[in-house]
Amino acid sequence: MKKEIPYKIYLEEQEMPRQWYNVRADMKKKPAPILDPRTLKPITLDELSGIFCRELAKQELDDTTAYIDIPHDIRSFYKMYRPSPLTRAYCLEKKLDTPAHIYYKFEGNNTSGSHKLNSAIAQAYYAKAQGLKGVTTETGAGQWGTALSMACAYLELDCQVYMVKCSYEQKPFRREVMRTYGAKVTPSPSMETEVGRKINQEFPGTTGSLGCAISEAVEAALGQEGYRYVLGSVLNQVLLHQSIIGLETKAALDKYGIKADMIIGCAGGGSNLGGLISPFAGQMVRGEADYEIIAVEPASCPSLTRGVYAYDYCDTGKVCPLSKMYTLGSGFIPSASHAGGLRYHGMSSTVSELYDQGYLTARSVDQTQVFEAAAMFAKVEGILPAPESSHAIRVAIDEAIRCRETGQEKNIVFGLTGTGYFDMVAYQRFNDGNMTDYVPTDEELKKSFASLPKTE
Amino acid sequence: MKKEIPYKIYLEEQEMPRQWYNVRADMKKKPAPILDPRTLKPITLDELSGIFCRELAKQELDDTTAYIDIPHDIRSFYKMYRPSPLTRAYCLEKKLDTPAHIYYKFEGNNTSGSHKLNSAIAQAYYAKAQGLKGVTTETGAGQWGTALSMACAYLELDCQVYMVKCSYEQKPFRREVMRTYGAKVTPSPSMETEVGRKINQEFPGTTGSLGCAISEAVEAALGQEGYRYVLGSVLNQVLLHQSIIGLETKAALDKYGIKADMIIGCAGGGSNLGGLISPFAGQMVRGEADYEIIAVEPASCPSLTRGVYAYDYCDTGKVCPLSKMYTLGSGFIPSASHAGGLRYHGMSSTVSELYDQGYLTARSVDQTQVFEAAAMFAKVEGILPAPESSHAIRVAIDEAIRCRETGQEKNIVFGLTGTGYFDMVAYQRFNDGNMTDYVPTDEELKKSFASLPKTE
Repeated sequence: MKKEIPYKIYLEEQEMPRQWYNVRADMKKKPAPILDPRTLKPITLDELSGIFCRELAKQELDDTTAYIDIPHDIRSFYKMYRPSPLTRAYCLEKKLDTPAHIYYKFEGNNTSGSHKLNSAIAQAYYAKAQGLKGVTTETGAGQWGTALSMACAYLELDCQVYMVKCSYEQKPFRREVMRTYGAKVTPSPSMETEVGRKINQEFPGTTGSLGCAISEAVEAALGQEGYRYVLGSVLNQVLLHQSIIGLETKAALDKYGIKADMIIGCAGGGSNLGGLISPFAGQMVRGEADYEIIAVEPASCPSLTRGVYAYDYCDTGKVCPLSKMYTLGSGFIPSASHAGGLRYHGMSSTVSELYDQGYLTARSVDQTQVFEAAAMFAKVEGILPAPESSHAIRVAIDEAIRCRETGQEKNIVFGLTGTGYFDMVAYQRFNDGNMTDYVPTDEELKKSFASLPKTE
Repeated sequence: MKKEIPYKIYLEEQEMPRQWYNVRADMKKKPAPILDPRTLKPITLDELSGIFCRELAKQELDDTTAYIDIPHDIRSFYKMYRPSPLTRAYCLEKKLDTPAHIYYKFEGNNTSGSHKLNSAIAQAYYAKAQGLKGVTTETGAGQWGTALSMACAYLELDCQVYMVKCSYEQKPFRREVMRTYGAKVTPSPSMETEVGRKINQEFPGTTGSLGCAISEAVEAALGQEGYRYVLGSVLNQVLLHQSIIGLETKAALDKYGIKADMIIGCAGGGSNLGGLISPFAGQMVRGEADYEIIAVEPASCPSLTRGVYAYDYCDTGKVCPLSKMYTLGSGFIPSASHAGGLRYHGMSSTVSELYDQGYLTARSVDQTQVFEAAAMFAKVEGILPAPESSHAIRVAIDEAIRCRETGQEKNIVFGLTGTGYFDMVAYQRFNDGNMTDYVPTDEELKKSFASLPKTE
């Protein structure tokens, strides 16, 4: 007999995953190795341990171990805000008059407002375990910086965040959340690093860029004894930590005997999508099950749908290792009209490889459509979603409407990565009818592809 | 054998309360009746039904029915964001090195960011059920306005919010959240009401006040066919709806065989405190159990600890019914240095009467102490609390430290009413070391008491 499905499926504490899952271990063809930016040769563990702390460098390179124990202290931290609920969107289904069953895994119920915290605590933990004093990072809108500040405060680790200057000035709320958690937040470009001083001198009055902030954070880490640089997306280690999302989702579905037909996630650097789909993609590569997996990206930053699959720099500053991935070129910058996140030029190498092998499809959507879906979702499901997450909502709604037309009772699962409480400037633009769409021309992309490095 | 207590206790959906609890029904001496502001005589159901919709007016006056069924549609809405977790603050206990067990009922995991939604959906539901077109209300910082907007969006009811002009301009995020939910948000004083036009004419350039916004909202409701005015705190009906907090808390404690020794809540108008303590106070008035209940208020707005117990106006505009309550006088305005909410001059008549009968004690705390507690809590428990909620955190921490000194293993339960994501201006003041404390002098209070009406 089937159990009645509640609005929210919570796992019991003892049902929470005790291991992360590394989908690369089960892939027959593995993602290509990352390259040292100086030599363009596969990077070694020792080389990588100069940038990341040792255990994280190991995780970054390990493509053979399928399950990795989650340390006790990280599980304790997870228990403060996890398990996150898998919610049956009964009200949305009713509104859409669809026979489909819609579920969403909601990662926004923590102060960082998104899934980023899942990897922040892991990265901070390994830094602490190695006896480091602190970590440095960059942040744009501030989501990742907030998550890292929270994790560092919990572990009493020093946290230095280089925040893109225009965000630092225009988003004082995020900045103050980080400061409340004890982080040192520096507007970038600053006068504290060589690269910052240089940029300030060359471009007086500049309001900064993510690329510049990364360069400053890396310089700050390398220049201080006992510090390492950490990064919140794209990396293999981040996907590993984020697998907690997919593992919990799968456990919750299994608990009620629900078989997902379709799994939808928004895709920027790929950390959320990769984490959500990991255990499902794992079943697929092992030949145990089949799902329709859809990555949703902004039409204004279409790395999967219009990018090329090639080695590229992960950062505009070209200081981080190179990765083979679907990319628009590290010099690509989305149009100024682009409102939400998901503005990364490339895509996690694991997600890229799974996509290249045909385990998932990709779709790009216009931002006005995305905000329409967001506003509808907010009204019927009561959660104001992040613009990023709303890309997944858009496609989930489209698919549910298709089910209404075909009469199919599909189980649609999507990732609701976070809340939009700090994105009200974009919502205001939408509410005022001032939001526009932008799609880069082929010419623009061609120009951007020209920045790709020659690796062969 | 005792079950191990998880970090978060969630009720199963079928364990959620199906009735609200009305503590007045069990009180031997009832709270005094509310009075018509024109006649200063007890108000009748018919009179009250002109301001509130019929069912809510009934609930307002009913002091004999102990349990009232929660309509199915409201329970459905509750299921989208409830049950809220009762969290064991393991990390805070460890940090404080206390033998006490600390639990908090967290009401912030919804887009309104607080418990206000519990009553907003109920008030909107009864308005809809009566066939009304819409509701009007006022909002200061925007918490209540957001909650009401969400409830009205869900029920497709028109929602008109008069927002104090300085908040409207300085807090555009809250305003945009409301607009996203389809509410019409008008800066108050506006040119749309008679009272608004009059105030604008008398005080050109005024940035408004809550009293003025209430008057505009009431005028707007009375002037439109099919509209009623709604209010988010103080009222008996609000306490009734908020009893869901206490009922869930009690059910979660009972599930694990935990007996609370101490229950702590912040107190502004009393809606959260009253809701949290209702079932526990009910046991006390029935002589079934004993608890130490503590109301915590700001030293800068000390209605319970320094107010008088008398009939007073609920609003500065003197258009709402009068209530017998602990009050500082309806003309009382906290010092400009006061940062958090809890700035209401009076206290729910039910909470006031329970306090007068000795079922709870009250404590006032300085805001710098409150923000110190908030920052510590954020760092160890991972949730950035609302300044209001942090009043309860302060006293919970103080009591847990006392337990460390005495060695007592008390079970301390407090209400964490919401998150502080929209209160970062106050946090910034604290982070920068610019926060000051203020305690009104006896002279100031004496002056304020002079505004009390003569009712006998």
